[in-house]
Parts: sequence; structure tokens; C-alpha cells
Amino acid sequence: MSAVTPNFDSPSCYAAGLSERAHVAARGLAMARGATKDTWLKRSAQLLRDQSERIIAENSKDVARAPEFDLNAAAIDRLKLNPSRLEKLALALEEIVLLPNPVGEVIDSSIRPNGLQVVRVRVPLGVVFFIYESRPNVTVDAAAICVKSGNAVILRGGKEALHSNRVLHQILQQALTDCDLPPDAVQLVQTPDRAVVGELLKRSDKISVTIPRGGKSLIERVAAEAKMPVIKHFDGICHVYVDATADFAMARRIVINSKVQRPGVCNAAECLLVHRDIAGKFLPEMAVDLQSAGVEVRGCEQSRRLIPGALAATEADYRTEYLDLKLSVRVVDGLEQAIEHIETYGSHHTETVVTNDFSVAQRFVAAVDSAAVLVNASTRFNDGGELGLGAEIGISTDKFHARGPCGLKELTSYKYVVHGNGQIRE
Amino acid sequence: MSAVTPNFDSPSCYAAGLSERAHVAARGLAMARGATKDTWLKRSAQLLRDQSERIIAENSKDVARAPEFDLNAAAIDRLKLNPSRLEKLALALEEIVLLPNPVGEVIDSSIRPNGLQVVRVRVPLGVVFFIYESRPNVTVDAAAICVKSGNAVILRGGKEALHSNRVLHQILQQALTDCDLPPDAVQLVQTPDRAVVGELLKRSDKISVTIPRGGKSLIERVAAEAKMPVIKHFDGICHVYVDATADFAMARRIVINSKVQRPGVCNAAECLLVHRDIAGKFLPEMAVDLQSAGVEVRGCEQSRRLIPGALAATEADYRTEYLDLKLSVRVVDGLEQAIEHIETYGSHHTETVVTNDFSVAQRFVAAVDSAAVLVNASTRFNDGGELGLGAEIGISTDKFHARGPCGLKELTSYKYVVHGNGQIRE
Repeated sequence: MSAVTPNFDSPSCYAAGLSERAHVAARGLAMARGATKDTWLKRSAQLLRDQSERIIAENSKDVARAPEFDLNAAAIDRLKLNPSRLEKLALALEEIVLLPNPVGEVIDSSIRPNGLQVVRVRVPLGVVFFIYESRPNVTVDAAAICVKSGNAVILRGGKEALHSNRVLHQILQQALTDCDLPPDAVQLVQTPDRAVVGELLKRSDKISVTIPRGGKSLIERVAAEAKMPVIKHFDGICHVYVDATADFAMARRIVINSKVQRPGVCNAAECLLVHRDIAGKFLPEMAVDLQSAGVEVRGCEQSRRLIPGALAATEADYRTEYLDLKLSVRVVDGLEQAIEHIETYGSHHTETVVTNDFSVAQRFVAAVDSAAVLVNASTRFNDGGELGLGAEIGISTDKFHARGPCGLKELTSYKYVVHGNGQIRE
Repeated sequence: MSAVTPNFDSPSCYAAGLSERAHVAARGLAMARGATKDTWLKRSAQLLRDQSERIIAENSKDVARAPEFDLNAAAIDRLKLNPSRLEKLALALEEIVLLPNPVGEVIDSSIRPNGLQVVRVRVPLGVVFFIYESRPNVTVDAAAICVKSGNAVILRGGKEALHSNRVLHQILQQALTDCDLPPDAVQLVQTPDRAVVGELLKRSDKISVTIPRGGKSLIERVAAEAKMPVIKHFDGICHVYVDATADFAMARRIVINSKVQRPGVCNAAECLLVHRDIAGKFLPEMAVDLQSAGVEVRGCEQSRRLIPGALAATEADYRTEYLDLKLSVRVVDGLEQAIEHIETYGSHHTETVVTNDFSVAQRFVAAVDSAAVLVNASTRFNDGGELGLGAEIGISTDKFHARGPCGLKELTSYKYVVHGNGQIRE
């Protein structure tokens, strides 16, 4: 069915076809054995290697057109595929092979007093609609995570990567056919027409969940329009709180790693909170590290006196996800003010306390309502791979269904399977 | 703050106040000890007993006004409170005391290769907006489940029960105050003005989830308007499939129990599917039981020949949740056609197979995509109490977040708590 030329004239008909085919494919995929899905991952990896020249040729068309879309040098670099990047993609697929098949896992079970055996079994969600921006490697990653978790996926990548996505999609579909899996388990929206997205967002009867990954405005638009559940991936305004009892060397290492190791990602720290009792000693030391790492500081009045060259932080700074080598700094009266600051300005993503005091660690962990709360470790660890989930399709800032990294299990639901021998209710 | 006279003139301001107070209360409640929440449940039970006369006096005002709202005799009966019903309500609270506190439960944990200790800990969702219809006992049940799971709740009952709900709410709040818990953990929408519901459904910043329980049109309206996640509780078009290998006596008992034990509820069976190889022998026997239970049958052509007095089933019958002593019957070619029928006409709620064949049971359980799939047991077991969850606030027909009965755990999320000793990402 996928071979049918899509009817781009009618976004509504095109969306209906995509979602109906995905729904049918999902029923087949839900019953597929783990070994078959793993064979598909390995076959896809092999095809990526075998057809690397073809992929790179298609990708170079996107790269050539990139200036038309006003992509800057960094964005063009992210768009580019080369043999080493393709090899990494193939290896990523082979890593997903090693993860356990989540489908059919017994989550919990009990035998009821009347002898009924109640088992809660993990099942796929059904159909995932995944909307993302330019990097074409995400096409392959997302498809792999969806299929391994038993879900059909409708991929909608950025128009800047359309040629790359088309060829990658063809390869993934060919591998599905080679493995006797439904080829419609992985479909690509073949047109940049935004109206198709709008139509797909209405189809809550066929699509189980939409996952938008990209800028805040994209996510807000999708969340407002979608009639099905959305797993959102909003700002990470992440904090490091350095308590009075912190080991200074450890605190400096954690602050620098949280801010600098990869400043453009959601789990990078954006704000440093420091206990007033140690600020006078700690901040001048910290300032040296920040300066040599090229970090621009925006501080409160007190911290500016201790950090040479720090700019004044405005209220807006504390609410900003810089995604850059910038850090806001505030001296707080103690733990409770740090918690209040995080509740007021944070985005419930990732927060770290550096402390040697057991009760401070306990209180911070209990009171801070974030997807990941860390003690004496970098904020950068809020990541599917680092927390042990394996691959991830995003980091949820929602509390509902999935919170934090979304891996294979987060794309599943469950059903109650009940075995009896004639029980009825009295 | 709850003592402030609500500003009914502005639905928007009233909704803002309710949701802001609930949000603040939820932060306090999330930190409350299990023992304190249990003391609140016991104190509430005691107040229900001590103040039964006052409650019944207020309830009788609702009963007296019931004809104004066109309530029929059955609905008026459901509205009525008397000493024995209040005692049952108090006992229900005391049963929830016995359930484990879900907050703080370690869902899973691991130690990462770098020594990080990763623990996934259960936390409350935050604020639940619960919309329901007339029965006032639901007010108490729902509040108990929300508070025990650490969530603040905004209750919006039917206008027919407003006096009853007000007095019950006062009692629950008094118990909160007596136990030093935030009184705004349980709030009641004090006006029947529908505009307040609309305003509350916009407040996704303060309300974590909305749970509508009532007719299909209510749920559809809420799902369409709500800006936050909704746990929906739609139709139960539940099936019993009697396989060729079924024990007839067991099958007859299960069909009658599934249909008749309480026909007005969502997990009652609405359709009987019978394997053609046994239809000629089984259906005449089944017909005797159905007739003596007063069940009206609407059958396919073949089944009508075997069931005296059966009406002809239309396509619409197979899509109808009768909630009454009516049953559709269809003879199928075998297991695969039964599965196809359930996929086409069912509502993914609860389905049972009666069989003695292991591979039939296995295939049915794997292929039927319903919240509960049972082998040789009544559909009526898809219920929080029966499946071992304890109390339930509803039965979700969604796959997302919670599926099937929603008890304490289904009103929770989780956070990652990570303990390190200075780890940074390389």
C-alpha cells in the first residue's frame, strides 16, 4: 500500500491513509516476536552500511539546498551525513538489539483470594506520530525505538532534510519487507505541507500519541492542536545548588560539567545557587573555572561582588534556558530558599544538590519536584543512556504517563490478563 | 483561604482561586506522611458517623428537589443517603487505610557502571479535577483515593447533589484541619455554573489531570475542552466468546454472571459470540438460562434459529452498550472471526474467552487488545477491588498513563532520584 502515490492535493485524505495504514500495521507489529524485530534492526544497520553512497548522495541535495532555508553553519553541520556518521547510526541500531523486548513483560501479578491469576502485561501503545526537526539521524533512531517497542510510527521530519529522510525511510521499509514485518510500520510524511500535520493531529482514533521534538513554539502548537495525548519535551531550566557542606572541588567539577560539557542541550545547567555561608569563599574559586571555560555569568547583587566581570541577573535571566555558555548565579539563605527558587523559576527538569549533609540531601530529594533530582552528580546524567534506559526518543517534561527520558518502556501501555477456572462474581 | 466567599460572578476568578489553592495544597500533601493521611481517613470516617443526622438532613433537601431535575426513581434512590449507606461509606474509608501508601515507593533501581545509584520513586501527580454525576458517596470515595495518593482534588459533583456534597465536603475539610493537613487538599466547586468547569479545564498549569465520570457526552465534552490530560471512562461493549472446546456449564454460568449480575455497569457483557461447531447444542441450553434471567436477545440469523423469541440483531446492536438486560448474540466461524468481531465492534474494555484449549486461550489473550482479557472468568472482574488494586476512581478506556481500573498508583507519577559521589559526564 505504501507504494501508492500519495494524494498531496488533499491533506485530509493523505493523513487518513497514513494513519489508517499505521493502525493496521501496528496490530501486526504488536504480535511480532522480539527476534523478528531484532533481525529488522540488524538488517537496517546492514543496509545503512551497504547503501551509504546512495544515502550520502541524497543527503548532499539537502545540504546544497540548506541556504534556501536560512540554516546557519551549525545547523548545516547537524544536517550532514558522512560515512562515519552513518556507521554511528548503524551501531546505534545494533545497540538497540541488545535491549530487552519490552512487549509481553509481566509488570506485576497476583493470585486473588478466589483463585483468579491476575497478570499485568506490557503491550505497545499502537501508533506514534513523531514530529522533529532537521537532523536526519533522528529518523533512524526514532523508527528503531518505536518498532522495537512494538509501535508503528509516522515520521514527520524537517523540510530541510526531506531527501535524506526519504532515502532513510526507503531503507527502513525495505528492511521491514525483508523481515516479513508490515512495511507500513514505518511511514514518512512525504510532503512538507503543514496542513498534513494538522490533519494527523486530529486522528486520535488511529494515533495513540504524538511526540514533538524541537523548539518551544513547535511543541506548544502541537500540544494545542493535538486531539490525542502528547509527550512534551519543554525547557530544561536546570539548577545546581551548592550547599554550605559541599566539597568545593566536587562542586566546581559538577558545576562546570553541568554547564559546559554540552551547553546546547536540555539537561545542561542554567542556574547556580550557592549557600550564603560559603559564597564568599566558594564563588571566587568557581569564578576562575567559569572564566577559563568561557562562561558568561549573570549574578545577583551578592554574587556579582564575588565574581569579577559578572553582569546583573534580571528576573528574566532566572527564567531563561540559555542553551549557551551563560549561567545565572544567585546566593541563597540556605536550602529552603534554594528549593523555593527552583519551584518558582525552574522547569521541573533536572536539579542537583552538592552536599555532604545527609538531611540536606534527603530534604532536597523529597521537596524538589523535578523529573530527575541528583545528589553530588552532574545534571547531564538525566539522559536515557546514562540512567540505564538505553536509547531514548526524548526527555518528557510531563508528569503524566512518562516523565524524564522516554525509552522503550515509555512507549508501552499494559493490559490485565486474567486466568480463571470458571469464577463468577457473587 | 477556603472560608473566603467564592466570587461566583466571575467563573474565571473563581476557577483561578480553586486551582491555585489546590496547587499549593498539593505541594504540602505530597510531603505528608502515610500515617497522617491514614489518620485523616479514620477521622473522616468518624465524622461521617458522628454527623450522620446533619448529613441526612442536608441530603433530604436534595432528595426533595430531585423532581425539579427530572430524576427518575432509580436516580433518586442512588441520590439518597441513610444511616446504613453512611456506615458503608465510613467502612470504605477504613478499607483505604489498609492499602499501602503509594508515595515514595521505589518502582525500580539500578547502580550504573560509574557508580551512580538510580532509583525511580513514585510521586503524586499533583492536582486532580474530578467531575462526576449525582451519587454523593462518590464525593467521599474520590477524595479519599486522591488524598491517600498524595494529590489535591477539586470535586465537581452534580447539581442534584449539591447540598449533600457541601456537607460531605465540610466534613472532609474539617478532618484535614484536625490532622494538620492543608484544608485545600479537598475542594468542592460550590456552584452549578457550567462556566466554572470550562475555566478549570483551561488551567493546565495548576491541574495535572481531569477525570470525568458520567455519560458519554460529558466525557466527550471534557476531553474536547481540557488543556490537561484526561483519564476517560468510555463505553464498555464487553464480549464473551464461547469456544468449541468450552465446558458448557462453565460457559453458561459465566455468560449469565457477565450479563446479569449488575447489567448497568461498564464491565457487564453486551455481546455473546459462539463457535459454530457447538452453537446448535450450546445456544438452546444458554437460551433457557437467559430467558429465566429475563434477558432479551438480539441475534444473528443463525442464532435466532436456536434461541426462541430472539429479535434480529442490527449492525447498531453490536455497537451498543445496552447497560440493561439485553444481549446481542452472534455465531462465528471460530476464534479468528471472534477476534475480528471484537476488534471491529468492541470498545477495548473487557473480553472473556471460555475454552479448554490452551492455544485458543493463548491466542485470544495475545490478539485481543482490551484493558482486561480474561480466560474462563466473568467480565465483571474488571474492577479495582477484584483485580487487587483496592479502591478505584474509575476504569480507564485509554491506553495512555492508566488502563483499566484506576486506583492509588494510577494517580501517581515518578521521579528519578540519583545519588552520586561527584560523578561528571565524560
